[in-house]
Amino acid sequence: MDSSVMKNKLQEYVDAFNRGDLKRLMALFADEAKVEDPVGQQPKIGRQEIQAFYRESMLGGAQLELLASPRGSFGNAASITFAVHSKMEGQSIRIDVTDVMTFDTNGKIVTMQAFWGPDDVQQV
Amino acid sequence: MDSSVMKNKLQEYVDAFNRGDLKRLMALFADEAKVEDPVGQQPKIGRQEIQAFYRESMLGGAQLELLASPRGSFGNAASITFAVHSKMEGQSIRIDVTDVMTFDTNGKIVTMQAFWGPDDVQQV
Repeated sequence: MDSSVMKNKLQEYVDAFNRGDLKRLMALFADEAKVEDPVGQQPKIGRQEIQAFYRESMLGGAQLELLASPRGSFGNAASITFAVHSKMEGQSIRIDVTDVMTFDTNGKIVTMQAFWGPDDVQQV
Repeated sequence: MDSSVMKNKLQEYVDAFNRGDLKRLMALFADEAKVEDPVGQQPKIGRQEIQAFYRESMLGGAQLELLASPRGSFGNAASITFAVHSKMEGQSIRIDVTDVMTFDTNGKIVTMQAFWGPDDVQQV
């Protein structure tokens, strides 16, 4: 898959998320996608679980701030690095994250891995 | 593995690289590590191939500029996002990269994946 196409899809992911456009966001995923967010915890598998996850994130008012240009690859993977600005129990928080996504031959996201650890969350 | 420990190792990776300290850099890797740089091309496997790869990069004078704080995870993986400043055929270039590394139980890097595509290289 063309590297620039994957990068454009990740920009679209950020835009759809920030506009709270769940339908447009979910259209980026394959039906049997797997979302591991964060890496090391139980993944969300399939459209239903993934949609519930993003719906909750959007309801919480989270916004994604890209910190660098999306990165492509010579394979089927691309990456974005960003800060999540959100609230937790009334407190403003920032989570520093890098997402790696892989794409199927139809250009849909089949895996998403979100790299952030307990020490990447801070009150602001 | 503790997320902050992995992140510190990645900071050490950047520092060792930028100082041209190949010995210190290689000490971060497990003997049977696999380095896929860039993702989608033939990986370097084992200490000998990996050392040759980094020696060549250092001889080319490449420098890594971190663009965001390292990211950890709840698993055995961590990530850095940076620009590589280097030269190619006398021309200054910049490559935008995200590395994902996984660690073994001894705290050594066992896999490294570098996400950058043909469109992440620019003349500057």
